[in-house]
Amino acid sequence: MDALTLAGRRYSIVRAVADDLPALVALLADDVLGRERESNDLGPYETAFARIDQDPNQLLLAVRDEEGTLVATMQLTLVPSLSRGGALRLQIEAVRVAGSTRGTGLGTALFDWAHTWGRRQGAVLAQLTTDATRLDAHRFYERLGYAASHVGMKLDL
Amino acid sequence: MDALTLAGRRYSIVRAVADDLPALVALLADDVLGRERESNDLGPYETAFARIDQDPNQLLLAVRDEEGTLVATMQLTLVPSLSRGGALRLQIEAVRVAGSTRGTGLGTALFDWAHTWGRRQGAVLAQLTTDATRLDAHRFYERLGYAASHVGMKLDL
Repeated sequence: MDALTLAGRRYSIVRAVADDLPALVALLADDVLGRERESNDLGPYETAFARIDQDPNQLLLAVRDEEGTLVATMQLTLVPSLSRGGALRLQIEAVRVAGSTRGTGLGTALFDWAHTWGRRQGAVLAQLTTDATRLDAHRFYERLGYAASHVGMKLDL
Repeated sequence: MDALTLAGRRYSIVRAVADDLPALVALLADDVLGRERESNDLGPYETAFARIDQDPNQLLLAVRDEEGTLVATMQLTLVPSLSRGGALRLQIEAVRVAGSTRGTGLGTALFDWAHTWGRRQGAVLAQLTTDATRLDAHRFYERLGYAASHVGMKLDL
């Protein structure tokens, strides 16, 4: 467990556990795109959680405030690859910060934490994709130093 | 092992082995962006290969023609995730088809093979990012049905 203090408020950062699942899914759904995509049936999330939890290349984060409320999450995946000189990549997905907590600097602090964690694991490149319509997110990531160098493409299988 | 026949030519698709590494790295480097990024020192690639090879969520492909020449590669990664209803994702990275083999339909056939493999593993979404300057690649992926819905962002750690 790790802790962040921002503007006098303390947040804990822990590896998510199965008991966090209902709050994690609610946070994913509390979003302009997420509300269309997430469901009330926890079954598929439980299956996915078990698979994430068993994978040594995965770290799913649960961030809580002092009252114990889940206020942020992100999924970190270490992706070994041959390209770019055998670069180990830190992939960041499923980032959410609760609306109530935005503007506090928690997002920036959480990314700093994630980048530090990735470097400690040997990652030399962080990568993420963000929906083309999330203009605020693009600006946020560019402020963190990310370059919008790629097009992210998806196909339903 | 699997095989594809295109215009009378037969290609084998196999899980890459350590002996494929020099040819794989040469194929990654034989590219307008890759030639700046890849190195002649095989050491880091060997480390990365071992990690890919040991990871049950990874499948690195070596595609050879009838003469045994490596003509294509791609890296498939199964990424379990909570978002989108606990969707298992098929991530496709480090795609290369040798210049000598382009225009034969091998790229399309290889993606079809990858999507079928992903579906069999339970993946419901394929995702990839492609450098914003690779306009031919964008058109190729759009013909396969991919939507350029996301911005791909990267940060050196």
